Amino acid sequence: MFASTPKPPYYAVIFTSHRAGDIGYAETSARMNELASEQPGFLGIESARGGDGDGITVSYWRDLESIHAWKANAEHRIAQERGKREWYSHYVTRVCKVEYDYAIPPSS
Amino acid sequence: MFASTPKPPYYAVIFTSHRAGDIGYAETSARMNELASEQPGFLGIESARGGDGDGITVSYWRDLESIHAWKANAEHRIAQERGKREWYSHYVTRVCKVEYDYAIPPSS
Repeated sequence: MFASTPKPPYYAVIFTSHRAGDIGYAETSARMNELASEQPGFLGIESARGGDGDGITVSYWRDLESIHAWKANAEHRIAQERGKREWYSHYVTRVCKVEYDYAIPPSS
Repeated sequence: MFASTPKPPYYAVIFTSHRAGDIGYAETSARMNELASEQPGFLGIESARGGDGDGITVSYWRDLESIHAWKANAEHRIAQERGKREWYSHYVTRVCKVEYDYAIPPSS
C-alpha cells in the first residue's frame, strides 16, 4: 500500500473517482498499474476504494514531465477513454507538488 | 465524496494509513471531519478506505498557514496522539500544493 517516495520535492497525482461500471475494470486497472510503474519518473502508487464505489488513487512522480508523458501514453489513453465511457460517473484529477512529508513509523 | 475546491493553486494534505484498531475510531473521525470543516482555510475533504484497513484521506486547504493551524489545534492534537497509539500501525502525511486540476463532468 505505502509508496516509497524520495525526499521532497516530488509530484503527486490525486485521482478521486466514483466508479459505476465493472466490466473489464480489474484487468485494465492492474495493467495500468504495471505500465505506470515502468514509466520514467514513476515513484509509486497508493489506492483505496470503499464498498460504495468511491475511490482515491495517488500516484507519485519525479516531475511534471513524467506526469505529462504518462497521460499521453498510447495504451493509457485508451484506458482513460474507456474509464470515461464505462467505469467512472465522476472523477477529479489534481496534480500537486509535494512540499514535505512525515511518517509513523519514520521512514528513515 | 467530491470536494468542491476553488481554482488552483490551493493545498492538499494526503494522509495514507493502515488502520489496525477500531475502538472509538468512528466517533473521533466524524468529530475531526466536523472540526476541520470549521477551521479557517478549510476547502474540503475526500476519503476512501477498503476492507483491508488501507485508507487515503485528502483534505484541501487555502494555504500552508491553515494546514499548520489545523495540525496544532488542541482537540486535533489529542486525536492525533490517539491515532498513533491506538488506530494506525503506519501512516504517511504529505503536504502538497495543487498546481492544476480537471474533472469529468467538468466542474464549471
